Formats: sequence, structure tokens, C-alpha cells
Amino acid sequence: MDSPCCSAANVSSAQPAQAFPGAREARLAIRRGDWVRHTSGLAPRNAQANLAILPERLAADFLRFCQRNPKPCPLLAVSEPGDPFLPTLGEDVDIRSDVPLYRVWRNGKLVEEVTDISAFWRDDLVSFLLGCSFSFEHALIDSGIELRHVKLGRNVAMYRTSIETVPAGPFHGPMVVSMRPMTAADAIRAVQITARVPRVHGAPVHLGDPSLIGIADVMKPDFGESVEILPGELPVFWACGVTPQSVVMAATPEFCITHAPGYMLITDLLNTDLALA
Amino acid sequence: MDSPCCSAANVSSAQPAQAFPGAREARLAIRRGDWVRHTSGLAPRNAQANLAILPERLAADFLRFCQRNPKPCPLLAVSEPGDPFLPTLGEDVDIRSDVPLYRVWRNGKLVEEVTDISAFWRDDLVSFLLGCSFSFEHALIDSGIELRHVKLGRNVAMYRTSIETVPAGPFHGPMVVSMRPMTAADAIRAVQITARVPRVHGAPVHLGDPSLIGIADVMKPDFGESVEILPGELPVFWACGVTPQSVVMAATPEFCITHAPGYMLITDLLNTDLALA
Repeated sequence: MDSPCCSAANVSSAQPAQAFPGAREARLAIRRGDWVRHTSGLAPRNAQANLAILPERLAADFLRFCQRNPKPCPLLAVSEPGDPFLPTLGEDVDIRSDVPLYRVWRNGKLVEEVTDISAFWRDDLVSFLLGCSFSFEHALIDSGIELRHVKLGRNVAMYRTSIETVPAGPFHGPMVVSMRPMTAADAIRAVQITARVPRVHGAPVHLGDPSLIGIADVMKPDFGESVEILPGELPVFWACGVTPQSVVMAATPEFCITHAPGYMLITDLLNTDLALA
Repeated sequence: MDSPCCSAANVSSAQPAQAFPGAREARLAIRRGDWVRHTSGLAPRNAQANLAILPERLAADFLRFCQRNPKPCPLLAVSEPGDPFLPTLGEDVDIRSDVPLYRVWRNGKLVEEVTDISAFWRDDLVSFLLGCSFSFEHALIDSGIELRHVKLGRNVAMYRTSIETVPAGPFHGPMVVSMRPMTAADAIRAVQITARVPRVHGAPVHLGDPSLIGIADVMKPDFGESVEILPGELPVFWACGVTPQSVVMAATPEFCITHAPGYMLITDLLNTDLALA
């Protein structure tokens, strides 16, 4: 499975794109179809969001799943059934056109990649927008903590764990985590920094020995790319936005739309809006 | 060297003493000479403080030392030269009588243990009151984190490290740390909890591999008593109030008074007053 995660270096070809410093400007270009590329580095002060669109029949279950698993599933917004607008994320946001690339799934199988889902829209669809780790990576980098995968331009390393999510309806499965190696002193600071952004995964779920959360070989991630853990560093693990995607796919909904990995919704929320005061 | 640290289980014989639920009541009994015992468990909601009394000639250097090393030396109050009162810690606090047992030092040597230092008082003496780890242990225990040394009724394990303090005048030397073993999940919570009490050592300075901070054998502490680190646990290290004591002794001041280990000043400050809102 590809990663839907929006790490600062989500796609291998990621280069900071400074083309659109503002969220609305970037969103308009995407809406017009002028930007069919990943969104890493676009409107860097603004929070980007992961997308899952489900039929209303499953929406209550998925909403309960997110409520029960806030670390991997930090819900930023949920639409009304059939309503493509998400005014709390931006007055003009239209979820049918404002993501650069979508994936359409039927019975758990990817059937199409499109730049606009107006043709697929239904009266019973509910959009779920989930916080993206780029917002907290931004906070870490701002605090002077170097993230190796960002420096190397790699996707972050992600792992299925032995930590079970709390199930709801058909949604259940293991928590997926992302890993960033750092010194103990940086890990202690990173706990404090990310604890302040509970709407974007919050504090780490584990640090140190990977085997304690069911990771057999930390150099062999299940998704993304591995990075070296240097002598004197600890692996630090955060709940990852791949979890809900993985859980949704495992439930094989008859119909589902997601963003393509790295092609996120750019919201009007600032990364700093997501931090506790 | 004995430990001046005021861990919740500072002295091996520590039993929670519920004799005085209130700080003032406890202080009055101590002042009268009716309580010449350690203060662990007395007025449990109130912050207790470590004491160092130095001649004015050294006071500015020591004050600078504390300012430069806030984690091991969290200053709660400093008196005027020659003034035995500390109104910010309690209206009636008289540092000459309100600690159950004092140690008098000359040229770095312990010369006497007394219950009242009125006879030793001089016009040039400055009192330094430093935050005590009991306040953050209280916060950890309140949050449901079990502290093994407290459970076992042992003094906390403390170690000299390779982390150098920032020197000031004659004051310099290695940071001393205390260690509490816990699971990674508890360590992550403990970072968040203790980060909120910067006036009592704050967040840990290290976790994981003890050799990275110059500790050769974590089962052989330099002060206090060892506790087992169970499989799946990490050692978590906090800056320790033994640091300033150790640094003062190494500077061999001609005259100095401290509290006896575990015999602390009980202040009117609540433990919760020391936490950030």
C-alpha cells in the first residue's frame, strides 16, 4: 500500500515548492487543474489534511472510530452528508475539486485516479479530513530539531505495530506509526513540542526498543523509506495517518475516495492554529 | 556524601507521616523542636525546599550559578543578606529555626548537626531555597505513574554524570541526576508532566542509554539506592538537587549551612503552584 501520509518529505521527488505561499492561491490553482503535483512545501504555514470520503452508511462508525483513536485519527473536519463544502477549513473549500489527485476505490480496490471527483459525487458521501504530520514536523523543524528523512528528501519510515486500535463497527486493525530517530535530549524536547499539537497526532506513542511495539526490524519499514539510527540516538514513534487509511481499506467499503499519497488538501488553518496556546 | 535530595522516599525509613496536613502547623512543630525527623509526607500538598546558606561574599556567584543551571538548581527564593526571613515562602518562615535538622560546614567539612542555627547566624548570611523533586514526584504519582523507589520505600538512585554545569565563580562541576525506570509510554507522559514544573527540575535531561551521560553502571548509583530496571522499561534521568550541594562542597566555602538530607523546609507554596497553568 502506498502511504497517504503527508510527511514533509512524503514523496521521493519532494522539493520545497514555494510557488504558492498562500493557501487560497494554491487551492485555486489546484481547483483549476493547474497543479497536479504533491503539495509538500505549498503554503508552508498552512495545515494540510488527509482525506477519506465514505458513504453515510459507514460514516457514524468511522466517526466513532476516530473519536476512539484520536492519536492516529485526528479529525480536523467532517462534512454534512452530500455536502462537498468544508467551511471550517476554508470558506471556499470544495472537496470535489480542491485536492490535486484523488483515488477512487470500489470494494477495497483502486479503480481510478482523477483530479476532480464531481462525476463521482453522491448525496450520501461524507468527507473526513484528518490532521497531517507535516504540521508537527513543521513545529519540530522550527524548534531546531533536524529530521533525517526531511534532510535526505525521503518519505518517513512507517510500521504496522502490535498496538491495536479501539474498533468501531467494521473498522479495526493495528496502529501504524511513523519513526524519526533523534538524540534523547531532542526526543525529550520533541515530546513537549508535539504534545502541544494533539490535533496532529500529538505526543509520541513509543520510544526506544522497537520490538516492544511489534516491530521486528526497524530498518525494514512497512511503508515509506528507512533512515539510519545513529549511535546515541533513539527511534521515536508517533501515531500515523496511515492508520485510518489502512483501517478503511481493510473494511472494504463498497465505495470510497481518498487523496493520492502526498496530494493533500491545503486548508486555511495555520499550523500554529493546531497547537495548544 | 549523603544526599540532600528530598525524594518522596528520601530516607530509607521513610513512612508517609500524616501528622501535619498543613504547612504552618508542621513548621510550628519543627520550630518548637517537637519534630526532629525527616519531612517526607508532611503537609503533602505543600512544596518542600532544599537549603544552602552562604556568606554574602559567595552569594552573587552562587546566584549566577543557579541562573545558569536552572534544571539542577531551581531557585524558589533567596534572602536578603543577614535576613533570616523568607516571606515569599511563608509569612512566618524563619530559616534559623524552621528546618528540623541543619548541617554546619567549615571549609567543606561537616562540623555540627543542630536543630536551630540562631547561634551561628551572621549578618552576611544569604539563604538559598531550591525546589525539591518531591513536588514533581507528587505530580507523577497523582497522574498514576508508579515510582519504583517510592513503592519500595528507597531513596531515589542518583549519579554523577559527564554533563558539565555552566560554571560561575568558584562553583562548577558535573550535573548529578536522579533516575526513575518506567515504560516508554509512562516516560512520554512523565516528560509532559514534569515539563510543566520547571521550578522543580522540569523535564528529564536524558532517557535510555546511561553510558551516553557518563554513567558506567546504572545499578551502582553514586548516591541513594539502586532499583531494578525491568524488561521493557527505560531509565529516565532528571537533573537533581544534589548538584548544587555537590558544587558548593567542592568550592569549600569557609562557612556554609545546609539542611540535613531529607529534613527540608516546608513552604506555604503548593506543589500545584509550581506547575505552569
